Amino acid sequence: MTKGKINLAEKLSLFNTHWDPKVVARYNENDVMVVKFQGEYPFHKHDDTDDFFLVIEGLVTMEYEDHDAVTFGPGEMVIVPKGVVHRPRAETEAKVLLIEPTGEPNSGDSGRAPAAKDWI
Amino acid sequence: MTKGKINLAEKLSLFNTHWDPKVVARYNENDVMVVKFQGEYPFHKHDDTDDFFLVIEGLVTMEYEDHDAVTFGPGEMVIVPKGVVHRPRAETEAKVLLIEPTGEPNSGDSGRAPAAKDWI
Repeated sequence: MTKGKINLAEKLSLFNTHWDPKVVARYNENDVMVVKFQGEYPFHKHDDTDDFFLVIEGLVTMEYEDHDAVTFGPGEMVIVPKGVVHRPRAETEAKVLLIEPTGEPNSGDSGRAPAAKDWI
Repeated sequence: MTKGKINLAEKLSLFNTHWDPKVVARYNENDVMVVKFQGEYPFHKHDDTDDFFLVIEGLVTMEYEDHDAVTFGPGEMVIVPKGVVHRPRAETEAKVLLIEPTGEPNSGDSGRAPAAKDWI
């Protein structure tokens, strides 16, 4: 467990894939991840966990089944409550800090194969 | 529970106190907070939880009893592992995103009165 600093931009420079979160740290039993979004992810939900999104660069739109879509940019965050159907999308590449419990599939119940969540 | 966006700079503009984290969201059983640091906090530890710090503006130095100090700035984070004695300080005002389990005193075992962690 590191006591050093983690530079998010540096971590984001190490990969180019989209919808492929990389773990940069562990906070209690959660993976702290950086991820690049581009295009549209399938609608899904996480029955047992909230989903934490903080935009580092670019613009992300969070679409909901039961709520108006929300577009958020650098320094803005959205926490999707557990059980809420949502779909993130980004017209152009966006860089995001994502926190989910370790072991939670990022794809929720969408049927899409979950990302490997490798450490970087 | 909001599905809307939270603008961290806007939340930080609402108060001027130091070492006085304000809750902006809940992620599972954690408080997601913004806080302003200036000066030096007492050495302390949290026996049962890691401590999450992401700098939004300014520079923070994390001092440890058993490790070299680490200075980190915007877009950089430190996670202090549970049980590790640490002391954050900032020569000039720094703005930080802080995550701790709900109910955890920010002052740990330092003897300093914990902040109220009011919602903002």
